[in-house]
Amino acid sequence: MSRTSSKQLEDTSVADTRPDTTVVGRVALVGFGTVGRAVAKILCETANPSLRLTHICNRNVERKKQPWVPADVIWTSDFREVLSSDADIVIELIGGLAPAEEFVRGALLAGKSVVTANKQLIARHGPDLLQLANRARCQLEFGASVAGGVPVLPALRTGLCGDRLHGISGILNGTCNYILSRIETARIPFSEALEEAQSRGYAEADASEDLDGGDARAKLAILALAGLQARVSPEQIRARTIRAVDAVDFDYATELGCTIRQISRADLKDGTMFAEVGPSLVATSSPFGRVQNNQNLVLTSGKYGGDMAFLGAGAGGDPTAVAVVSDLMFVAQSLSAGARFHWPQQFLAPKVSCDFETPWYLRFLVKDQPGIIAKLAAILSAYGLNIDAVLQKPGYEKAALPFVITLEPCRDSQLHPAREEMAALDFAIKPCLCLPILR
Amino acid sequence: MSRTSSKQLEDTSVADTRPDTTVVGRVALVGFGTVGRAVAKILCETANPSLRLTHICNRNVERKKQPWVPADVIWTSDFREVLSSDADIVIELIGGLAPAEEFVRGALLAGKSVVTANKQLIARHGPDLLQLANRARCQLEFGASVAGGVPVLPALRTGLCGDRLHGISGILNGTCNYILSRIETARIPFSEALEEAQSRGYAEADASEDLDGGDARAKLAILALAGLQARVSPEQIRARTIRAVDAVDFDYATELGCTIRQISRADLKDGTMFAEVGPSLVATSSPFGRVQNNQNLVLTSGKYGGDMAFLGAGAGGDPTAVAVVSDLMFVAQSLSAGARFHWPQQFLAPKVSCDFETPWYLRFLVKDQPGIIAKLAAILSAYGLNIDAVLQKPGYEKAALPFVITLEPCRDSQLHPAREEMAALDFAIKPCLCLPILR
Repeated sequence: MSRTSSKQLEDTSVADTRPDTTVVGRVALVGFGTVGRAVAKILCETANPSLRLTHICNRNVERKKQPWVPADVIWTSDFREVLSSDADIVIELIGGLAPAEEFVRGALLAGKSVVTANKQLIARHGPDLLQLANRARCQLEFGASVAGGVPVLPALRTGLCGDRLHGISGILNGTCNYILSRIETARIPFSEALEEAQSRGYAEADASEDLDGGDARAKLAILALAGLQARVSPEQIRARTIRAVDAVDFDYATELGCTIRQISRADLKDGTMFAEVGPSLVATSSPFGRVQNNQNLVLTSGKYGGDMAFLGAGAGGDPTAVAVVSDLMFVAQSLSAGARFHWPQQFLAPKVSCDFETPWYLRFLVKDQPGIIAKLAAILSAYGLNIDAVLQKPGYEKAALPFVITLEPCRDSQLHPAREEMAALDFAIKPCLCLPILR
Repeated sequence: MSRTSSKQLEDTSVADTRPDTTVVGRVALVGFGTVGRAVAKILCETANPSLRLTHICNRNVERKKQPWVPADVIWTSDFREVLSSDADIVIELIGGLAPAEEFVRGALLAGKSVVTANKQLIARHGPDLLQLANRARCQLEFGASVAGGVPVLPALRTGLCGDRLHGISGILNGTCNYILSRIETARIPFSEALEEAQSRGYAEADASEDLDGGDARAKLAILALAGLQARVSPEQIRARTIRAVDAVDFDYATELGCTIRQISRADLKDGTMFAEVGPSLVATSSPFGRVQNNQNLVLTSGKYGGDMAFLGAGAGGDPTAVAVVSDLMFVAQSLSAGARFHWPQQFLAPKVSCDFETPWYLRFLVKDQPGIIAKLAAILSAYGLNIDAVLQKPGYEKAALPFVITLEPCRDSQLHPAREEMAALDFAIKPCLCLPILR
């Protein structure tokens, strides 16, 4: 390390004669949808001297052109033009696996650092791409791939890396949270809340990825990678749908001091990762219970630092664009310092289990007749499961009567055979809805 | 940038032949109190290959020695020994201005990067020290100086730097929050809550720095520096004490759907920074209203990303040590990449004002007699201040009767002359307590 004389350094009146290290990072933006436009807006509005937008690449790019983009930006529909350009950093915002994976690999192999918001790509190929970036001496950042504007990935990387985390949980899907908090507030049926979310643009026409947990478990896999240094594929994580949750469940949850949220959680314990995504009862007064509409919340639990919560806008063009531009500035700083910051390359490959031990909420829907509770209680007892409470609120139809049994903590695998046996009883209109109760 | 052939990079079966870039960062720890010990514990327990603890420096170091510290660590009471050593990174944990400032300057001038948790030092000399670090080509990090284990400074640096923030607010002092939430819960007098905090070790014998806002405004100055790129000295920020808040104020706040917290806030608007620290009414259902005991909460508001909340343990040896070790890992990564990451060097120097426009809570303590409300209302009206509500709960002594008037939004400077006139009235036992109501 070069050492400069103390005198010179202490004399603050002397102008800094160090050569200016501000290097322009040339940025190519690939994918010019909502987030892409928001990123371009920020870059054009804030005039960061270390970043210059040089290319915008999109299919049918002609119809995408915007008057506020500087005239010297090159518009192209051909990614090869980006690859062969002098761009230093490629922002990938096209989403999905193909052709995004090919583009990202191509950019890294061409010596360009990559910033991406692509959760499916990182959840499935994150470890490989990080190794490729390392070998190519490029930087790969993906801060926008989880929880949009909530800077949990940067915080995991720089502010919590000194801890040893053992648990991460969160409300990671704004669509589910919007639907569940609408049912909570207005006590409307699930189908109506879904239609409302679709008409307001909070849910797609085919909302399966959101409702059935595919979106959230990809994000959980990324959080596990970044925070727990564990490599798990989204398919290893059980996802339960929220479609079976209805207004009546909020009536009963309220009786228990709870509400219902789609919770994603991963806990590392003795080499096993307990992980799942699905609707769960959470205390109304807990951080989870208070997350409204399409906000996101991430909780981390560490050996030394205890629990931390991050709350903010989970999606939307502008908040996601902040995450992208922040990554971009970090990469540009690295480039201008002549350095590349690499994510850790070594990951655990834990066994993944959804066999959490937890208290349970079982909501039955039955044709009312004498002896129902007795029969259910006999089955639960036969499997060694202890009833904590039986709740039957008045005012429902006898022909399709909802009521609730809560169980003391037991493992999912203990409950499973009892559920099957109970579902076969002649008074059961459908199998009971089983939700974990998180305390 | 060197470009490697695509074929070689894609062939993942070929061993990575790049020279190992893991460089050991030699670390000297200065200050071996609660946080220092916790930092040393983490370094010794986690065996990070890129960090090695080489020195521990403390006054009377002999009585500080711990059996779990590796035998090759050098214990010294002489900071000059650290300065002349081969340590790459100095962790400053002695706190206060002298001799910490001299030590930090000395370390930077000796070419050593510095990690510090010292809020007074950064709040007062942050910009100068950052410039010195830049000139000395060393890195200076201070993530532990605000909100202990809550990684808000790293998030401001890496995850929110792409936004343009205009407001930061927070509950930054765990002692005040403990005392206020104890009064809230137990409705005990202020003096009793303070004694309780002292006996539990949450408050010092002389708790003035905490109670009167000195601690929180130093932290707010650091947040303004890191998040708003604004250079303000703590003394420019008005601090109101929490000593005048008592159980009765929680009775009245409850009537208004509120509770009381020590809030620190800074808003940049048209070149002026509106900033202050002091007890304030906040909605019970707001993020601030739900912060209990000695937790910390920081809210940021950005032009693009909207609002973000960070909640966690504000103090304590282990959470603060996580922040220190995280900074240390970041510096070590930079060193091993041959780079130095510098904080921005350019700061705004805004005018600082405490003249917020806000609704107000005025709590009077009077000798009861006829005509009190009429006289107060006449004064308020004469200054153009609009009464929103008058609250007088039954059950208090007539000789020292507390009651409340709330005002519609007005500036602090409009309210001030009315306060003085009201304080001079013969029935006033003491000047009324004025708290802003934050919505």
